[in-house]
Amino acid sequence: MDNIWSDCKGDLEEVEQHIKKSLDSEVAIITTVAHHILNGGGKRIRPLLLILSARLCAYTGGSHIALAGIVEFIHTATLLHDDVIDNEKIRRGISAARVLWGNRESILVGDYLYTLAMCQAVMMENIEVNYLLSATCRKMTEGETLQLVHNNNLELTEANYFQIIEYKTASLISACCRLGGIIAGAPDVEKNALTRFGQNLGLAFQVADDTLDYVADRKRLGKSLGKDLKEGKITLPLLHLLQNCNEKEKKSLKEIILGRKFFQKDLAYVIGLMEKHGSTHYALAQAKTFVNRAKEESSLFKDSRHRQALEAVADYVIRRDH
Amino acid sequence: MDNIWSDCKGDLEEVEQHIKKSLDSEVAIITTVAHHILNGGGKRIRPLLLILSARLCAYTGGSHIALAGIVEFIHTATLLHDDVIDNEKIRRGISAARVLWGNRESILVGDYLYTLAMCQAVMMENIEVNYLLSATCRKMTEGETLQLVHNNNLELTEANYFQIIEYKTASLISACCRLGGIIAGAPDVEKNALTRFGQNLGLAFQVADDTLDYVADRKRLGKSLGKDLKEGKITLPLLHLLQNCNEKEKKSLKEIILGRKFFQKDLAYVIGLMEKHGSTHYALAQAKTFVNRAKEESSLFKDSRHRQALEAVADYVIRRDH
Repeated sequence: MDNIWSDCKGDLEEVEQHIKKSLDSEVAIITTVAHHILNGGGKRIRPLLLILSARLCAYTGGSHIALAGIVEFIHTATLLHDDVIDNEKIRRGISAARVLWGNRESILVGDYLYTLAMCQAVMMENIEVNYLLSATCRKMTEGETLQLVHNNNLELTEANYFQIIEYKTASLISACCRLGGIIAGAPDVEKNALTRFGQNLGLAFQVADDTLDYVADRKRLGKSLGKDLKEGKITLPLLHLLQNCNEKEKKSLKEIILGRKFFQKDLAYVIGLMEKHGSTHYALAQAKTFVNRAKEESSLFKDSRHRQALEAVADYVIRRDH
Repeated sequence: MDNIWSDCKGDLEEVEQHIKKSLDSEVAIITTVAHHILNGGGKRIRPLLLILSARLCAYTGGSHIALAGIVEFIHTATLLHDDVIDNEKIRRGISAARVLWGNRESILVGDYLYTLAMCQAVMMENIEVNYLLSATCRKMTEGETLQLVHNNNLELTEANYFQIIEYKTASLISACCRLGGIIAGAPDVEKNALTRFGQNLGLAFQVADDTLDYVADRKRLGKSLGKDLKEGKITLPLLHLLQNCNEKEKKSLKEIILGRKFFQKDLAYVIGLMEKHGSTHYALAQAKTFVNRAKEESSLFKDSRHRQALEAVADYVIRRDH
């Protein structure tokens, strides 16, 4: 991955410059809050995927910079709203915007970043880009809403779970990859392969992220665990556990999930059960399967540095140390 | 006004059908919440202005229906977020969505309506429409944020106040009028006149709305008064009062505005002072001035039924009984 980051360093720095330059609202607090969250240590995975996809399709223009900024604005808008919705206190190790400025400010700056993204997308005057971005934003809000609807739903199925993460997470990651193909003027067959590559990579990413919420690990020291459990979000490892534990364990799990209070010992108990029933192992294996499917899609392209880089990103997103 | 509504009845019914048809998210709660607020008695002033502006420019196509739906979706998205931000319990005489479903659901369905509007705008494949709509949405979020920043700001100036209402309210109303001209392919001089017409009408509308929050009136029975005062929103009549009352009164006003508790007697006291100092009278005169300015703009067009209708709407928005 280090090679990939350094290979894309020039482009990514341009993206950073573009993001900084774009945040110039005459309403000072918007600029302040937006800078706070946009400079808060995001890894820029989406811009990276967009840049690499464009390169894979031999793109030589300059639209990828602004477009990478746009997808990061959209992603950041959802983070601001998510943090309000989940009552989050910390985002990437620093105080969430809603803690520093308030829920109301976070809602409005989220709205601002959405609309800023749309303004910049319109300015690209590329109808295919605009169709994809607007449809993706719509899908993401549906995914977030579905997740909320299924909070504390012990009857959640794997199909429900995969729909949620496909909509809320994989749709934008998939769009990033397709956008690279779109601006490069790639043929449909390549754009579709990139779409499915991103789709599978996005699913892998979210399944891994959901699983790591239950994996205590020295490398991940400082990351808080059990957030999903605390919020009543039923993710893949918990889903697996609910379907594979015995009746007595199930009863305890229900009490923990639906209980009003959440104790650290509950988390330890759940993690213990997950180990016993192989739930995190199962979920990580699923993530790995999505990575492999992603690579099947990228294999449509002839071998190249850019293809290898995209595949390395796919491996990276399910690693424990990011 | 009755004549105008009935004259546009066919188009407005098509807009209603279009809105209903558009609300078909596979996530049931989105459709439910969106229906609740979109069927909650909105007057459809924005669609009406768009339709009349298009007619004024001799538009004969069918794009005004979808476009009227789009502006109503954008308006409704802001209402959902505003109600969360203001902790509103009631919207147009019925329970606010946030009371019935929750803040989180209201935030997400607001996001959904924004993105639905953008999806439909992109589908129109008219770059001028998309430039205007995305820039307008951005301006609206800036206006809402400015309003929040200036909450409880006793040093607010009239310039600040007018910027807030221009951004949060007049920008969309102005856009509705310009959009009518855009789809009709009107020349720039007409589109610009429509823009300024809508701008002034929008300012008149908001000033009147802000003033009526202090005007107890038999016709407006059932409307709660003093909401802005309670929320610390400094609007034009209060601004006028703060600038024209004596020191002792100013001290009391500060205590009421900045106080943690709000009593009905405080409102009565403020309304009394406003009568004494002519503050609501001043504000309504300002609203009337904006209506006159709007009419100066529409006078660019030769006299017609549609021009008269637009001017009647301008008179209507500052009346007390809407």
